[in-house]
Amino acid sequence: MVGRIPIMNVTPLVDLGRQPAKATVGEPLPVTASVFREGHDQLGAEVVLIGPDGRRRPTVRMTKHADVPDRYEAWVVPDAPGAWSFEVVAWSDPLGTWQHDAALKVPAGVDVELMFTEAHLLLDRVLTSLDPRDPASAGAAQVVQSAIEAARDTTRPDAARLAALESPEVADVMYRHPVRELLTVEGPYPAYADRERALFSSWYEFFPRSEGATRDEKTGRVTSGTFQTASKRLDAVAAMGFDIVYLPPIHPIGEVNRKGPNNTLDPGPDDTGSPWAIGSKDGGHDAIHPDLGTFEDFDAFVGRARDLGLEVALDLALQAAPDHPWVTSHPEWFTTRADGTIAYAENPPKKYQDIYPVNFDNDPSGICQEVLRIVRLWMSHGVRVFRVDNPHTKPLAFWEWLLREVRRTDPDVLFLAEAFTRPAMMQALGAVGFHQSYTYFTWRNAKWELEEYLREVSHETSHLMRPNFFVNTPDILHAFLQYGGPAAFKIRAALAACGSPSWGVYAGFELFEHVAVKPGSEEYLDSEKYQIRVRDWDAADREGRTLAPYLTRLNEIRRAHRSLQLLRNLSIHWSDDENVLVFSKVARDPSGAIEDAVIVVVNVDPHAARETTVHLDMAALGLEEHDAFVVHDEITGEDWTWSAHNYVRLDPFHEPAHVLDVRRTR
Amino acid sequence: MVGRIPIMNVTPLVDLGRQPAKATVGEPLPVTASVFREGHDQLGAEVVLIGPDGRRRPTVRMTKHADVPDRYEAWVVPDAPGAWSFEVVAWSDPLGTWQHDAALKVPAGVDVELMFTEAHLLLDRVLTSLDPRDPASAGAAQVVQSAIEAARDTTRPDAARLAALESPEVADVMYRHPVRELLTVEGPYPAYADRERALFSSWYEFFPRSEGATRDEKTGRVTSGTFQTASKRLDAVAAMGFDIVYLPPIHPIGEVNRKGPNNTLDPGPDDTGSPWAIGSKDGGHDAIHPDLGTFEDFDAFVGRARDLGLEVALDLALQAAPDHPWVTSHPEWFTTRADGTIAYAENPPKKYQDIYPVNFDNDPSGICQEVLRIVRLWMSHGVRVFRVDNPHTKPLAFWEWLLREVRRTDPDVLFLAEAFTRPAMMQALGAVGFHQSYTYFTWRNAKWELEEYLREVSHETSHLMRPNFFVNTPDILHAFLQYGGPAAFKIRAALAACGSPSWGVYAGFELFEHVAVKPGSEEYLDSEKYQIRVRDWDAADREGRTLAPYLTRLNEIRRAHRSLQLLRNLSIHWSDDENVLVFSKVARDPSGAIEDAVIVVVNVDPHAARETTVHLDMAALGLEEHDAFVVHDEITGEDWTWSAHNYVRLDPFHEPAHVLDVRRTR
Repeated sequence: MVGRIPIMNVTPLVDLGRQPAKATVGEPLPVTASVFREGHDQLGAEVVLIGPDGRRRPTVRMTKHADVPDRYEAWVVPDAPGAWSFEVVAWSDPLGTWQHDAALKVPAGVDVELMFTEAHLLLDRVLTSLDPRDPASAGAAQVVQSAIEAARDTTRPDAARLAALESPEVADVMYRHPVRELLTVEGPYPAYADRERALFSSWYEFFPRSEGATRDEKTGRVTSGTFQTASKRLDAVAAMGFDIVYLPPIHPIGEVNRKGPNNTLDPGPDDTGSPWAIGSKDGGHDAIHPDLGTFEDFDAFVGRARDLGLEVALDLALQAAPDHPWVTSHPEWFTTRADGTIAYAENPPKKYQDIYPVNFDNDPSGICQEVLRIVRLWMSHGVRVFRVDNPHTKPLAFWEWLLREVRRTDPDVLFLAEAFTRPAMMQALGAVGFHQSYTYFTWRNAKWELEEYLREVSHETSHLMRPNFFVNTPDILHAFLQYGGPAAFKIRAALAACGSPSWGVYAGFELFEHVAVKPGSEEYLDSEKYQIRVRDWDAADREGRTLAPYLTRLNEIRRAHRSLQLLRNLSIHWSDDENVLVFSKVARDPSGAIEDAVIVVVNVDPHAARETTVHLDMAALGLEEHDAFVVHDEITGEDWTWSAHNYVRLDPFHEPAHVLDVRRTR
Repeated sequence: MVGRIPIMNVTPLVDLGRQPAKATVGEPLPVTASVFREGHDQLGAEVVLIGPDGRRRPTVRMTKHADVPDRYEAWVVPDAPGAWSFEVVAWSDPLGTWQHDAALKVPAGVDVELMFTEAHLLLDRVLTSLDPRDPASAGAAQVVQSAIEAARDTTRPDAARLAALESPEVADVMYRHPVRELLTVEGPYPAYADRERALFSSWYEFFPRSEGATRDEKTGRVTSGTFQTASKRLDAVAAMGFDIVYLPPIHPIGEVNRKGPNNTLDPGPDDTGSPWAIGSKDGGHDAIHPDLGTFEDFDAFVGRARDLGLEVALDLALQAAPDHPWVTSHPEWFTTRADGTIAYAENPPKKYQDIYPVNFDNDPSGICQEVLRIVRLWMSHGVRVFRVDNPHTKPLAFWEWLLREVRRTDPDVLFLAEAFTRPAMMQALGAVGFHQSYTYFTWRNAKWELEEYLREVSHETSHLMRPNFFVNTPDILHAFLQYGGPAAFKIRAALAACGSPSWGVYAGFELFEHVAVKPGSEEYLDSEKYQIRVRDWDAADREGRTLAPYLTRLNEIRRAHRSLQLLRNLSIHWSDDENVLVFSKVARDPSGAIEDAVIVVVNVDPHAARETTVHLDMAALGLEEHDAFVVHDEITGEDWTWSAHNYVRLDPFHEPAHVLDVRRTR
């Protein structure tokens, strides 16, 4: 049944409210609803958050949307992790109705004494509702008392009596202490608040076998890095300001049908194979590749990372090499074909003979428990973040189950979905519990594409998925980086670091690695997926051939600016140039005042300087149309005085992006 | 929990599925859903309708949307009135997967014999599933048997074996008899099917007191029409092809604070007052105005209408004149103000002192039961259609209750919502049960506005409300009619009659009545709301000063063309002229083939001839891009050969609109 004051089209709802909306501790969450009623009387609307402790938080008044009739909105902030819910509450607002009517009727001489009598009766009800033990209420009571006296004082002119009742102080008390009639509740609807790192994180990916690997210059033979040698790289990662270090699979690599360098089919005896071809006689998903070290070494690596403020994220790739122990112990976890063989992965007519995909339907409970066991094993070794490989090739219901099981006991454990597929599955993976998601960001390079996509991830899908903008991955070297020169790397880093509260870099990006295996491909030449890459970080630093200082600065700016740590606070602004992208992000204090605002201006053309005029949506920055203010470029340290319309010149050979701290002069 | 094959974002859902979606007996209803799965295997999706009898109808296969990934759609048709529901069913489709893979692998020489073995095994399952008692299945079984033989015949070339399995006959059997695995069900969700008149209706509104009224030429005195005299007008209404005759309130009219002509405040003793100021010493909502006659007269009027194929719609206006019997018997059904007086209707600072609005909150149950009693009283006198006055000024929950109560016992009774207010309330009134809704049509006159609005009512809101396009009402004489000349009346009639399956005309439209009470007003001069209007229909007919033949032709065309009787079947087409609007409607037979298609081309500029090129969306008409076809203008009888691009000239002083029957030549 519809309520007395109808409340409809509540957001955020995920899958009709059957799944919780995405929320984060400390992150303002917008709740909206269509609230309306019969006739002309006024109404009020509020949102109530109910915490994981079952306690109802103080209500937050909803405000009317400026452009959409009957649309109301409030921003609420979960203050602890866990399963929250929210209700929308609406009520008839006789004080508001009185204010509206009195302003029209008293000056027109209609029902004058009656309007004052009604004011008196309503204010009496406000007085009764005030808690005498609350000191704040005492002030309100005094204001109400004076208003009642003004309403009753027939010796004063009507206009003076009305003015007393319309004073800002009285209006404020009426707003804060409304008379609520015909109370109607819609909800509760669920929202799950994760820890802050689920929203705000800076990822760095490296292959531990490459870090500290050495090449014998005489034989050309490469010796694998180990957890011990790789842990030495953690200092540099932490110094760049990253907070999650993500390792591709660290398990034994299959020997059967192993791939050679550059995805070839005829490996030599020293070739390492792909870490995603998991499992050999040395063990499966619960084992460590012997070249990398032991569990003790791994624990030491995790410990060193923790000391540096880094969390270690492991890859969870649910597939097996043909010599994975599961293949003999649990052949039912794979697909057996009509000829009795186990099905390889394939994309017909192509076959991937180094990998067997897992079949989740022959023994759902068996495979579920095994995956849970593996996840818990690594959790017990300090892993609280997993990057899940190709989750879109496994049943969605499996992930819903797994993530719920883990969340039940360990709500701090985070999962990043590496799904590059169509929107329905991408969004559904977020909806059923993935904390973060890879996105289409690498393929959004034009200004109009970025505008559309930033709007989409910040607003349209923010209840479903938290984006992580990786600038590159071992699978994705976009043509923009292949052909854009060093400026392209700066552009993409600035966009990722400022456009999304979570971003990621795969090692080598800072060295401008940009050579693809062949024209038209997004695969790296000599990809680290199939071979160890020996890099001389020190030489690059010495010779200044590195973007590390720029990445470091971006992460510093992200830590300094609360607005860059949030998702749902992005606005697009206008520039006259088709290559100059402008967006801003703002953070508000608990009173709703803007405490931090950043304007990002990026020339997305890495080949030419652009000069243009930037036109700001001043309201989005909490500014008046004619305000002037100082902006401080966090990249270069320069200051300018800006207003609604500003000249900008961005030369990609110098700096392709402004990251402007808005400093209020008022 | 998410299902094995995820099914999300199902439409049509109203208020999260808590209210039934609008459906009509015989009207194809589109059901859509996002259906997707892990990996590359194929899936199938179907819709199942469940009838009010609880019986599941044969499933209808969903087809993939051409442009939106993972979006599926099926059109289903409720075949009886009542509370239906629908489910979306999805399943893994191993036959589809086999077809996809075999087409790639067999020609590439990959797994050739294995693919044929799998075909054999799958087709064996199809064979087992066929019902041997069903003659249609026997043919299918023969096709499958031959396919199996081809698959097993190793003496034939691989390409020939594959071709046999890929033949249209085999593909057809595979599509009609799929192997369904991992079956997943989403729903059921409700849809309520009303009788056909809820969707397809032609309304004519007249004031019975005006029909057969006479003016004494000497005294100027007017004698009211009666049900007896008004019933003589029914023949003409029926002859014009209308099927619902709607009467403004027929109850006693209040004498206290009665309004005079043109909404003046000082009526003379002979002034009739507004029929919407209901109630006097002669009775209230359950009484008949003494001037109109008795209940016997009313019954005779309804009977005559029925004989002519007309249903009588009464006005349900829940408000009272100050001398309505309720005011003394049930003062609690009104609002008493602080000074002890009953509140008049007002729009501050304006007061409407001839009307007391009803208060639904003092005695909700009492007022509810009284309204239900009144509705049932008129139902018992043959009224099965109500036009509800200003429903948006009464609580939404009241309407939900009333309409459910009536629907429970009398599902044929229809309610039209006369709400001209913001979209949220308009849509919510439809959502809680109103069968038809007045719309913004009268205020949509430019081509771009009409394109947008036709799309909105036909598609975006069709699950919530069924539009009724009135060309005029006693309250709305749009400037387009005031200043557009006779062409404007033709334009608006053609747009309403063809643009919406339900349309309406208020008496006088066919006489081109177009004079407003003052410039800038939409009120008629000498409005029938406040006085009786004596019209000489016969003289107008004799002198040809009438649009009645045009209205008659439009209603004939509507009856002849199934496509014009439906709502969700409208497509907008393109013309190069900013005043030439083009849309089409199609109707399909049970097999999905188009059985009727109409293209409507309207010059919405009543002041100038327009010539332009019309560009058709051929797919929307079920045509190929290069097809030619004959169109027959149902207004003028002319024939032309059309194709995707067509020259059109429309002169409003001749005919402003083409209504083109698409005649297939293929």
